[in-house]
Parts: sequence; structure tokens; C-alpha cells
Amino acid sequence: MEIKVVKDILEANDLVANGIKEKLGKANTFMINIMGSPGSGKTCLLERTIEGFGDKFDVGVIEGDIRTSMDSERLTAYGVPVVQINTEPFGGDCHLPATAVGRAMEGLDLVSLDLVIVENVGNLVCPAEFYIGEDRKVVVLSLTEGEDKPLKYPLMFRESYALVISKLDLLPHLDIDMELVRSNALSVNPSLKVFPLSAKTGEGVDEWLRWLGREIGPGRSGG
Amino acid sequence: MEIKVVKDILEANDLVANGIKEKLGKANTFMINIMGSPGSGKTCLLERTIEGFGDKFDVGVIEGDIRTSMDSERLTAYGVPVVQINTEPFGGDCHLPATAVGRAMEGLDLVSLDLVIVENVGNLVCPAEFYIGEDRKVVVLSLTEGEDKPLKYPLMFRESYALVISKLDLLPHLDIDMELVRSNALSVNPSLKVFPLSAKTGEGVDEWLRWLGREIGPGRSGG
Repeated sequence: MEIKVVKDILEANDLVANGIKEKLGKANTFMINIMGSPGSGKTCLLERTIEGFGDKFDVGVIEGDIRTSMDSERLTAYGVPVVQINTEPFGGDCHLPATAVGRAMEGLDLVSLDLVIVENVGNLVCPAEFYIGEDRKVVVLSLTEGEDKPLKYPLMFRESYALVISKLDLLPHLDIDMELVRSNALSVNPSLKVFPLSAKTGEGVDEWLRWLGREIGPGRSGG
Repeated sequence: MEIKVVKDILEANDLVANGIKEKLGKANTFMINIMGSPGSGKTCLLERTIEGFGDKFDVGVIEGDIRTSMDSERLTAYGVPVVQINTEPFGGDCHLPATAVGRAMEGLDLVSLDLVIVENVGNLVCPAEFYIGEDRKVVVLSLTEGEDKPLKYPLMFRESYALVISKLDLLPHLDIDMELVRSNALSVNPSLKVFPLSAKTGEGVDEWLRWLGREIGPGRSGG
């Protein structure tokens, strides 16, 4: 009985997500879904990405949080359109459901955008279960979270197309084996693209931007 | 309809949790439920707690993970009984439901234990919604997660009795205002006990142990 309900919710979600995907396709807009634990550095990655792309791509942002609009306020400083979703009125949802993303998208002028970045609710578990119509799922894992996380939270790493290993600047201060983080992630998902970087020092950010630029590129015919 | 289902699940969970609470009361055993993001330092806190209590209290552990028994293996090295729950067979549950804790508890000889520590699945959202019969909920927040987390994930901080701010040793390497972490947490829950500590250097661990010892104490008549 309980399983049936969950299945229904996931199916209803996928229907809405398929509609979003179609809408994005018509507008020729690429969308990534950024996921990761609270404090893994998702908003910092967004800031460096928007900054790094400059005039190259027109970016819009959908910010998911249970509560507060702090991240949106941070991001509007970069002169990009931002729509905030607070899941608290919906029972403090631990993930962004496709319906919420669809509603937020009405606040964006899709045809004027090359890229929509969705920052999901900070959670290494639940968001991985909900397709929101994105082209690529990206997981951000902070170096401070430990090498074992891909093995302990495998669904997130299995579902993601790329892994950003953040806070690289802290490496000298941590008892962390960077290569073990990478190999554990690859053991769960061998085709994962891995980008170690520091949003603070900028190390590794160019590789991330180059990859993302290529992903956006082929689908776009200019605009 | 959806809301009704969730309500039923929570009510069913509470019934089981009440049974656990009763069982613990009969055995005169105290139980804490340790929650926090992946990599926030929950297992390290457990290690320092077990080590720190030494012969003072008999401790048992219930380890919750979606997958792997890595944490259990780490903890058995300390000579305490450990029962692992993997939620993956139950759909990769993002929290420990009371039923799972109840089943795990059958693997512990409660009357021989003063304290049961439950390490919940790494998640700053969902575990806060599920009462498992514990005496105290404790949230672990790593300094690396940022000052804004209590405001963005308020339920966890509202439900918790104590907050451990972990990885204090990293403070010199972070752009973090420790007092703002504390005041944000207290703005959500003014009665929260706050313990900044480093499981690595040991700083602040004594204050945590003293508090926990007192909490265990009054309920126990020796044994």
C-alpha cells in the first residue's frame, strides 16, 4: 500500500517533468539540476558559474530552499533572473518536485535564456529520486564530507552525470584522500565526469565551465 | 489525499516509537538520536563519546545508513555492541523509521546498557520528522556547512534538544562566523544546548560529555 502511493507520486512527478523538458526543448534552453548536502557549496558554484560565463551564456536560476530567500538575494547581485521556491508551505519538502519547478519556470523568460540552473534543496538523498525535466543532474560533494559518501549514498552518484568535488582549498587541512573520493564515486558510476574545484580560490573552475559550456553548446543554435 | 497518507505514516511511526520509549524506560536505558548532514561528523562524535565515557557508562549503538556497514565496522573497534540498519532494502529510506529502530533494538541487550546512541541517516531534513522513541534528539552541524543552515533547515533545529557544532579545528581556514552559527540556531530554538567541538583535537568534547552524562544520570539508578 505504502509502496503504491510512493510509485504514484513518482509517476505523477515524471509526467510534469516531461512537460518541463518539452518546454525547455522548444525554447532551446539547457537545464541542470544541482544537488548536494547542505553546505556542500552549491550556491558558491552557481556564483562562480554565472561570473565565469559572463556574456557568453544567458543564465537564469531557480533556487530551492525549505525556507528563506537568502540564496536568491545572493544571486540577484549577479544581475541574473532568479526565482525562489520555498518548500515549507508544501510540508517542508526535502526535495524539489517537478510541479514546483514548473511553477517557478513561469517566472523566467525561457527563450531569452541559454541555461537554467536549478539549485535543489540541500540533501544527498531525496532529490536524486525526483526527475524535474533537467538535461543533466550534477552532484556537489564537499571534500569535508569524507571519502565514503558515494558508497553510502549511491543513488545520488548513480543518477548524476557530473560530480563537483568542492572546497579543494581545504585539502591541506583535512585527513582526506582526494583520489579515494574520486575512485569511490567512479565505482558507483563509472561514467561520472569529475570536477575537483575550489570556488574560493578558483582552482578547477575553468575545467567545470569548459565542460558545462560544451554541454550547453551543441543543443543551442545561437541566440 | 497525499497529505492524509503522510499523516497516516507519521501516526503509525509514532505508535511504534512509543513502544520503543516504553521498552527503554523498563530497561532504564537512555537513548539519543544523532542527526545531521552527510559528513557532518556524526560517527567521529560517536567515537569520541564512547572513548570519553570509558567504563563510566555502557553504550550500545544503532547505525543507520542507506548502504554499507563502514560505520559499524569503525565502531566495533571500540568494543561496544553495534547493530547496523541499511535502509536500502526499504527503498533507500532517507531517515530511520521507528520500525527499523525497533527491529535493530532486538539485537541489543538493553538492560545491560546505560545509553543507546542511534546514528541516523545523513540528512538535515527528513530524520527530524520521525520520532523513534529517543530521550533526546541531537543535531550535528559542521562549521563547514555555513552560518545559514539553522535558518534554512529550521525543523531539525527546532526538534533538537542539543546542537553539536563540529570540526571546530577548521575555523581558522573558513570564512565562518562561529557566533552567527550559534545565534542563528538559537533564533530558531532558544532553548537549544550548543556544543562547539573538534572530534579531531578534542577541544570542547569534555563539555559535551559532561552534559550527556548528566542527561543519562538522573534517569538511571545505577547498573
